[in-house]
Amino acid sequence: MNRQQLIGQILEKKNYLCVGLDTDLSAIPAFLKSVTDPVFEFNKRIIDSTREYCIGYKINTAFYEAQGFRGWETMQKTVDYIPSTHFKIADAKRGDTGNSSMQYARAFFETLGFDAVTVAPYMGEDSVRPFLEYKDKWTILLGLTSNQGAKDFELLRLGDELLYESVLKKASRWGTTENLMFVIGATRADLLAKIRKHTPDHFYLVPGVGAQGGSLKEISDKGLNTDCGLLVNASRAIIYASSGEDFAEKAGKVAAGYAAEMGSLLYSAGISKRK
Amino acid sequence: MNRQQLIGQILEKKNYLCVGLDTDLSAIPAFLKSVTDPVFEFNKRIIDSTREYCIGYKINTAFYEAQGFRGWETMQKTVDYIPSTHFKIADAKRGDTGNSSMQYARAFFETLGFDAVTVAPYMGEDSVRPFLEYKDKWTILLGLTSNQGAKDFELLRLGDELLYESVLKKASRWGTTENLMFVIGATRADLLAKIRKHTPDHFYLVPGVGAQGGSLKEISDKGLNTDCGLLVNASRAIIYASSGEDFAEKAGKVAAGYAAEMGSLLYSAGISKRK
Repeated sequence: MNRQQLIGQILEKKNYLCVGLDTDLSAIPAFLKSVTDPVFEFNKRIIDSTREYCIGYKINTAFYEAQGFRGWETMQKTVDYIPSTHFKIADAKRGDTGNSSMQYARAFFETLGFDAVTVAPYMGEDSVRPFLEYKDKWTILLGLTSNQGAKDFELLRLGDELLYESVLKKASRWGTTENLMFVIGATRADLLAKIRKHTPDHFYLVPGVGAQGGSLKEISDKGLNTDCGLLVNASRAIIYASSGEDFAEKAGKVAAGYAAEMGSLLYSAGISKRK
Repeated sequence: MNRQQLIGQILEKKNYLCVGLDTDLSAIPAFLKSVTDPVFEFNKRIIDSTREYCIGYKINTAFYEAQGFRGWETMQKTVDYIPSTHFKIADAKRGDTGNSSMQYARAFFETLGFDAVTVAPYMGEDSVRPFLEYKDKWTILLGLTSNQGAKDFELLRLGDELLYESVLKKASRWGTTENLMFVIGATRADLLAKIRKHTPDHFYLVPGVGAQGGSLKEISDKGLNTDCGLLVNASRAIIYASSGEDFAEKAGKVAAGYAAEMGSLLYSAGISKRK
């Protein structure tokens, strides 16, 4: 999916919500556990009930890998089930020497069929480059993450700037606004205005809304640009909205709530012409 | 495998060689391609012919993931096939928020049964902590990597030190010499003496010998400590030593050559008492 198509989806649906499928086998409703592939069944129902209210899905590979190759099979089935209208993100945080990153890019873009993959910047340009070389695919580089540990390295000072600022600046020269986004944690709203100065036109993937405590309004006030420029992800707040048989229905309701708030925010910011 | 057992293996075999199973389906001998799982068949034969000359195997997850869930199944079969005497490293370069890193740790240490996993430090302590909490398992944190891109961030100056030095120093306080190693690329031999000052007792995983141009002698002269303290990995130089039907035999010969050189280096350094 290219930038124009992504923006098209956002304007059509009037939201910029991604639903995070961090599906933990131990956390899904008990009544689903007797089916052959409970995680896939759970994901399918979540997708059915939320697709109307979101523009994409983010799959956190960690939760699938914990189940071994069967988990990878579930991940493949889930990606295949996501409607082609929706943006598909592998939250995989890969990054290795060029030769290996090329294999990861193949894994996520070709074999699994994702539109985007999250990548860790530590190893530098040649570890990121192979992901950027795919047409109409996206590299979502870790910028400033929402966790406590961000203070250990990301927020360290290097001369005039912090490490994550150096990542944003350098990586902006490696890719373009057509193939590169950044992960900016929702708990970093206080820094978003500053971050927008470095990268005014890029999309940001913003995880951490809901369960991790980030505020949608604050992020949007500071982070929206003229093309929207935000993909806000909520995982647990949506997929675990209920642990009963109504889990999918409740997930849909929570997603609809986020979508409605996003609709208002897009309208207030003048990005969407209709409410 | 704990530190004492690892050192025991090194002293018994008189080498510190890991064989890197970066097995690329497109690079394995043509005559193997008709079997059901060519990559597993290739790995099996490489393991059979090299196990005598190495103390461990490093599996680069990228090459398996490029084949999707079938590739993960091949990886599982390969780990299962590695003798229990050998140290099993997942070169996976994972790292995410605590909740997700916990799932990755489960995937590699429990589900797949590796002894060690490589982890990227960018997201800081809480992204590394879940890996460190497994008894007799190892976190191998990226320190200074062998690729060109290391100059982009790892070698940047933060006040009195470079970023990778800050990673070594901070992480040394998170883990111990019993559960934490560092990746130090073989092309960084010029910096090894300095790196040893920060972390005198840690093991280093050193990839990049052979095809990537690192010199075994130079690395060993500067990197060996009284417990050996090095795991040197060679991948392509061993597994692709021949592209013919003799590939396993040739791989064994190249591994034996490295092992013999390591034996001499251990003896010269006074670590091994017998040649």
